[in-house]
Amino acid sequence: MRVTIKDVAKKAGLSPATVSLALNGKGERLSPRTVQAALDAARELDYRPDQNALNLITHRSNAIGLILPDICNAVFARIAHGAQERCQEDGYHLILCNSDGQPQKDVEYCRVLADRGVDGMLLVLSPDTGGYAAECSREIRKAQVPVVLIDRESREIAAPAVCTDHELGALLVVRHLLELGHRKIGCISGPPGVPSAQQRMRGYRRALWEYGIEQETGLMVEGDYRTESGYWATERLLEQGVTAIFACNDLMACGVYRYAVEHGIQIPKNLSVAGFDDAEFSDVLAVPLTTVRQPSFTLGRAAAERLIAQIRGETVPQEPEVFPPELKIRASACPPKSV
Amino acid sequence: MRVTIKDVAKKAGLSPATVSLALNGKGERLSPRTVQAALDAARELDYRPDQNALNLITHRSNAIGLILPDICNAVFARIAHGAQERCQEDGYHLILCNSDGQPQKDVEYCRVLADRGVDGMLLVLSPDTGGYAAECSREIRKAQVPVVLIDRESREIAAPAVCTDHELGALLVVRHLLELGHRKIGCISGPPGVPSAQQRMRGYRRALWEYGIEQETGLMVEGDYRTESGYWATERLLEQGVTAIFACNDLMACGVYRYAVEHGIQIPKNLSVAGFDDAEFSDVLAVPLTTVRQPSFTLGRAAAERLIAQIRGETVPQEPEVFPPELKIRASACPPKSV
Repeated sequence: MRVTIKDVAKKAGLSPATVSLALNGKGERLSPRTVQAALDAARELDYRPDQNALNLITHRSNAIGLILPDICNAVFARIAHGAQERCQEDGYHLILCNSDGQPQKDVEYCRVLADRGVDGMLLVLSPDTGGYAAECSREIRKAQVPVVLIDRESREIAAPAVCTDHELGALLVVRHLLELGHRKIGCISGPPGVPSAQQRMRGYRRALWEYGIEQETGLMVEGDYRTESGYWATERLLEQGVTAIFACNDLMACGVYRYAVEHGIQIPKNLSVAGFDDAEFSDVLAVPLTTVRQPSFTLGRAAAERLIAQIRGETVPQEPEVFPPELKIRASACPPKSV
Repeated sequence: MRVTIKDVAKKAGLSPATVSLALNGKGERLSPRTVQAALDAARELDYRPDQNALNLITHRSNAIGLILPDICNAVFARIAHGAQERCQEDGYHLILCNSDGQPQKDVEYCRVLADRGVDGMLLVLSPDTGGYAAECSREIRKAQVPVVLIDRESREIAAPAVCTDHELGALLVVRHLLELGHRKIGCISGPPGVPSAQQRMRGYRRALWEYGIEQETGLMVEGDYRTESGYWATERLLEQGVTAIFACNDLMACGVYRYAVEHGIQIPKNLSVAGFDDAEFSDVLAVPLTTVRQPSFTLGRAAAERLIAQIRGETVPQEPEVFPPELKIRASACPPKSV
């Protein structure tokens, strides 16, 4: 059986109440010998107080909830890793909730975590929140615990956010292609309506604008973040005579690779390719992919940092903290043949 | 502020003790009208009891701890996903602990979770447990909570386990290469001493034995589960005249791909390749990789299932539950040219 305070009391020859005072640093009225006897007995029996009882006294659960769309997606896994590491440093436990990208589950988990009495929540909203963000907001207000949003802000939820600068990431990688001498650069976008995808497109446009290159609508093809869409977009972009393709995520860049292999197009000699995400596989591809690494681990840590500060009662800035992504130059882009 | 039982009592015009009896289904001595008044007030105020208080009464935390080496590894992320889904169905929360593959952290987390009063633990041990497994075992015995081991058994820890049949997986994929007509099949092993790697090697040997093919030691090259080791092993295996390579994980298969691209060897026309793991990228490679899918999600669910059964006081079989992996036939293997 688990060692209880009664066992300690019995061993020390004291009452449980006396042991409790001694162990909780409230032994001013006890003799030093009594305090020592209680401490010795507790150590010998390896007594550790019941966390549930402590929680009830302190009105703290020492638990932080993390809601995210898909733990099997490397970006979210890295966020979870960073958050867990930071929580652990301050003795918080991280409760993992996988919403499967369903916004109604975001709401459900907000409610469940509130019932559980977590000290705070970290929330990576599902892609299409629709009307559910307002419901999340209601649950959060009711729970009266601090919240930090990760990767996505929300007008409905009044909480500090930590984000990746997706626009900057796209700007950096398209600039890299421009610096190599490419002027006809195709872009395979993400699904319309997804904020990160829109920001990446903005970065692409800004880079072209900086170089005084007119945007041709034919060089922008809509994708859906899946490999297959990258494959078909490649066909259309090559018809337009592009020398380089910026795919708005690495999975679509894989689609470009597949098209190239099937059609005898050598990367990067005949076609330069760049992606976004620095997915697990990007570095191990036959031609390692030039891409943008999201600061996901840092994001997870920073979000937990802000949350813990709020739990401690500190005021944290309400404007989002934006982290720069990192350009990863690898082997998939080189100067175009004509240069 | 959070709605408390006092608020409900005030609204209903009852004492908190009466409300407590009514809400906890112990209102036999109360009038039906009183019970109804308490229930109505609770519903109107959206009162939900403090989980910490309930936990103290029920001696349950409704929390399950999951310790794993690396949440950013897709195999473990899928285990976590499966476990979380199963836990959620029974109202348990999953506390995520990332050991970074350090066995001393396994011990630390066992202790911390026990202090927290979790109802049970799911444990994916770090690769090199050394003497730490015995320490984990001590912490678990002290905590007196049920434990289920995932993916790896341990002689030191007396707990049921759920595992992948790595040997069967390797057997299936090497048989596939043999059925295609390959007779000189190279094998790039995992790091020596890692149980899953040893089991995969056994599967490779068993498949050759089934086909009456003598094992040549030159066809077995040691790898370390990293891409680079797959690259260098390929050079050595091609010198031996292999027509197919079985890499004991997908990352090393990527090394084979890279070597092939750099040396103008076409996959699968000139060299068939198979891997193990069905990593996130295996399906999106330019030549989709024939590989073995670990039943990781199923493993996570099954482990949580066994754990919850134990928490309920049911007896579960002590012998490990072994799940078959699935052969994923894709485009990277075809009959050898000479056939």
